[in-house]
Amino acid sequence: MKASQFFISTLKEAPADAEVVSHKLMMRAGMIKRLGAGIYNYMPMGLRVIRKVEAIIRDEMNRAGAVEMLMPVVQPAELWQETGRFDKMGPELMRVKDRHGRDFIIQPTSEEVVTDVARQELRSYKQLPKNFYHIQTKFRDERRPRFGVMRGREFTMKDAYSFDRDPASAAKSYEAMFAAYKRIFDRFGLTYRAVAADTGAIGGDLSHEFQVIAQTGEDAIIYCPTSDYAANIELAEAVAPAAPRAAATQALAKTPTPGKSTCADVAAFLGLDLKQTVKSLVLATDELDDQGVIVKSTVWLLLVRGDHDMNEVKVGKLEGLKAGFRFATVPEIEDHFGCKPGYLGPIGLLKPVKIVADRTVAQMSDFVCGANAWDHHFTGANWGRDLPEPDMVADIRNVVEGDPSPDGQGVLAIERGIEVGHVFYLGTKYSKAMNATFLDETGKPALMEMGCYGIGVTRILGAAIEQNHDARGIIWPASIAPFEVALCPIGMDRSEEVKAAAQRLYADLQGAGVDVILDDRGERPGAMFADWELIGVPLRVVISDRGLKEGQLEVQGRRDAEASKVALTEVVAQVRSRLSA
Amino acid sequence: MKASQFFISTLKEAPADAEVVSHKLMMRAGMIKRLGAGIYNYMPMGLRVIRKVEAIIRDEMNRAGAVEMLMPVVQPAELWQETGRFDKMGPELMRVKDRHGRDFIIQPTSEEVVTDVARQELRSYKQLPKNFYHIQTKFRDERRPRFGVMRGREFTMKDAYSFDRDPASAAKSYEAMFAAYKRIFDRFGLTYRAVAADTGAIGGDLSHEFQVIAQTGEDAIIYCPTSDYAANIELAEAVAPAAPRAAATQALAKTPTPGKSTCADVAAFLGLDLKQTVKSLVLATDELDDQGVIVKSTVWLLLVRGDHDMNEVKVGKLEGLKAGFRFATVPEIEDHFGCKPGYLGPIGLLKPVKIVADRTVAQMSDFVCGANAWDHHFTGANWGRDLPEPDMVADIRNVVEGDPSPDGQGVLAIERGIEVGHVFYLGTKYSKAMNATFLDETGKPALMEMGCYGIGVTRILGAAIEQNHDARGIIWPASIAPFEVALCPIGMDRSEEVKAAAQRLYADLQGAGVDVILDDRGERPGAMFADWELIGVPLRVVISDRGLKEGQLEVQGRRDAEASKVALTEVVAQVRSRLSA
Repeated sequence: MKASQFFISTLKEAPADAEVVSHKLMMRAGMIKRLGAGIYNYMPMGLRVIRKVEAIIRDEMNRAGAVEMLMPVVQPAELWQETGRFDKMGPELMRVKDRHGRDFIIQPTSEEVVTDVARQELRSYKQLPKNFYHIQTKFRDERRPRFGVMRGREFTMKDAYSFDRDPASAAKSYEAMFAAYKRIFDRFGLTYRAVAADTGAIGGDLSHEFQVIAQTGEDAIIYCPTSDYAANIELAEAVAPAAPRAAATQALAKTPTPGKSTCADVAAFLGLDLKQTVKSLVLATDELDDQGVIVKSTVWLLLVRGDHDMNEVKVGKLEGLKAGFRFATVPEIEDHFGCKPGYLGPIGLLKPVKIVADRTVAQMSDFVCGANAWDHHFTGANWGRDLPEPDMVADIRNVVEGDPSPDGQGVLAIERGIEVGHVFYLGTKYSKAMNATFLDETGKPALMEMGCYGIGVTRILGAAIEQNHDARGIIWPASIAPFEVALCPIGMDRSEEVKAAAQRLYADLQGAGVDVILDDRGERPGAMFADWELIGVPLRVVISDRGLKEGQLEVQGRRDAEASKVALTEVVAQVRSRLSA
Repeated sequence: MKASQFFISTLKEAPADAEVVSHKLMMRAGMIKRLGAGIYNYMPMGLRVIRKVEAIIRDEMNRAGAVEMLMPVVQPAELWQETGRFDKMGPELMRVKDRHGRDFIIQPTSEEVVTDVARQELRSYKQLPKNFYHIQTKFRDERRPRFGVMRGREFTMKDAYSFDRDPASAAKSYEAMFAAYKRIFDRFGLTYRAVAADTGAIGGDLSHEFQVIAQTGEDAIIYCPTSDYAANIELAEAVAPAAPRAAATQALAKTPTPGKSTCADVAAFLGLDLKQTVKSLVLATDELDDQGVIVKSTVWLLLVRGDHDMNEVKVGKLEGLKAGFRFATVPEIEDHFGCKPGYLGPIGLLKPVKIVADRTVAQMSDFVCGANAWDHHFTGANWGRDLPEPDMVADIRNVVEGDPSPDGQGVLAIERGIEVGHVFYLGTKYSKAMNATFLDETGKPALMEMGCYGIGVTRILGAAIEQNHDARGIIWPASIAPFEVALCPIGMDRSEEVKAAAQRLYADLQGAGVDVILDDRGERPGAMFADWELIGVPLRVVISDRGLKEGQLEVQGRRDAEASKVALTEVVAQVRSRLSA
């Protein structure tokens, strides 16, 4: 490609609404252009990256035996009503009526449509397993779109769906996708981690997120540096402390803590370690009658150590809470605890409350907790002596750095990641709702076992940049860079030698299969170099009169501190070798 | 590709709602699957054709200097309000509100968005000309979607938009696109015609439709077999007859023609040539005051020969009618003609009526026309003698086969076509509405001259099939076939020799760059051959034990009456040579 036939548009400053570095750099490098909130034009420079990302995905999906098709953007509501998602999904699902007043949705994913295809097309066990995928425009009407392509409303996603005859076969399909995803992310040249993720209502343990590691990532990734363990924060298990509960050494004492309602304030006020305090969270569950009227409510007190955070996903899996819970109301709290929120605790309750202690809390002794009296806490509280043993002991907190790894192989570390892929075993959730059956070997209809596998194509761009950039701009991995090499001739308009050499080298590099752009715009060297550093092209080759006289050209990698001189005759080989490194 | 890793799904019968052959065959060949009215899943077999069509388009668009980008499917209404299209377009434009109640549209084209990009990005004459294109999902909420992909609601379109500094440069951009389109359609291997088309309100003569020739086409294409002339029916000029008006030979006579209100009936009843009759059409125009109240209406009588049809587009360009017209009401007709519709004519009017005679009618003598008396016609009517010369003589009819070509090079012929591409010079229609200016060489802002260029990607599939099919199925041109060669081994499961030969040939053909599918499904030969004939793959190679013993394989082109035997060692060369022919 010659720059004069392409479209390059760089900016010195990012627009004010760009909050994160990838958004800023994509705007500045002319990769995207805002059309509306969370809706972007992909400019020619950005589209080249998308196409390279898509090509790698397509190649590996096909190699893994998945078959590409194309499902529509605008989908009839009827199918979404079959699974209940038309009503259940919130305003994130964009709904639209056609000229006849019929309901449609703009697809956020395609489970319903692909299941509809499968139930019509896959009639026999002989046709299974089958994996259909497409790379298509998606729309999610995010409440607060932001961060450019990281949380946009319209985006491109690759979504694949596997259909299997039984769970064992579905597990194989899942493994094949998992392996394909690893090859895909390896080829992207990104540092990533596949982390076990929560499967929510589906159950089972087959769900992994592919997280691109970046300090700016929204997600916490838990891993063990000395083992293979990796999980997201929702799933990572906080194991019970190895040491048993110590014996009580202090007497229970009701202590004034005026105005100190947080654990941190109380610990500081009393001169104690935050790890000696216990945090109280009050939830409630309701039993409904046939008419949906509440007939009975139960109040729950959840206890986590003062320096820990409650994990709602884990709480949502507990017996008695997994059908749904809410925060307790202030009247409910006063009724049960005899105190307004701020100084609540498990000792001296007025009415029965179900007490759930985190595993760590259950092993504490001489701890500090709210006294159910305004401006007061108890110190020296001990299980069994000052209050009964908890009704339930469970893992209800987020792990923290230094916690023991659940696999017993060391301690946990935490890093930040950006979720760009997700593989998920769906079981029969959709096939059951839509009656997607096949005839098994005995001729009986059976529900298909499904999996779904997504990669956020446009999000990859943002994640790659969050991971790979410096003060001068983007640093693309070669496999997804808009161009592999920027050929920068200096004074092409006044030197016939430079012009001829540039065109010869351009042709030679193209002939060698290198994706090269010849910068024939006639920009000054400084502006030209700044553009290609901002755009993030991996290699730059400078052609100057002086270089030609010396028979050497300057080749500089995007991460190199300075250029190396390479003999003219060696440039193509050198470029190829650096790109394949 | 191996069939076992792909997805093939053929049907014996087309669904009942498939009206045209391309729709039937695409359904039967498993290329598309209906999701809703005018909304289709592109199944793997169909998607392969789409991808090949897109690749050819992309290649030639890039070669012509156009730059690919990607504009969103969901577009903010604000831009469409700037051009007025948000309000002016009918229900064909799909409108949708986001969660905040803001208006959006699902794009049917992207003039507004690309003009918005251009007015921000193209600031100087130095950046012009520029041509941006994208290949993206479109939605048009057709009142009556039908014919499969030929008139669907959701479809894929390539739309390009050029921006130039002046009309002369815009004409060059137009010519470049015209040439690119010719290369594109040549590479598709389709028989097509580029026909001049009407430019509507824009004016000028720069608009061409690319029509794929097919008997089933919706459009009439007018061309001159002995010259380059080609135009669509809306535009094709009907020139005045070469012979001057003959002298009157008959007396005017009011003749009873009971119940004969059409020209054909009258001619038959009177035993005259239909070409002696004149058809009357009554229109009306209104003058409005500032409040939009009609202050004056004018009645118009348009006369075309009995065997001709009025052309509304031509009528809409006439002085006095171009601001808009309507059909006259029955009271208006009775008031001016003294007769109800059915026996109207230009002789003996009660009130002033503007008479527009088609060029042919103006040169008729001794003609038959309605007598403005129920059940009566005049015969022997003559201009100047029985009625004044017409107020206006103009081309207001559709041309018919045998009319003289407007270029004087012969006579016109008519064939049917399917419009699959359109190039259009837009002038400043959009740049003016959206104030898309650039700074010219004197530093002054000037409006960009625009052109737009569309190709219906998915429609190409339907058009190609309408043009190329037989009783057995589709006959794809090699360049856009889902596969170039179907390799059909017979008895692969029981013969090791067949299996080994099939896999070797499969590898050899792939190595030679041939897009081959190895049919390893284990189907019987009849079913296997029928599938590939239905799907329309250009070449079939059969590998059988007997063939291997003879050292010869059967190679059969999709249009060949029978297979030819080709020496095993020659198969790859033969296939390559046939595909490049």
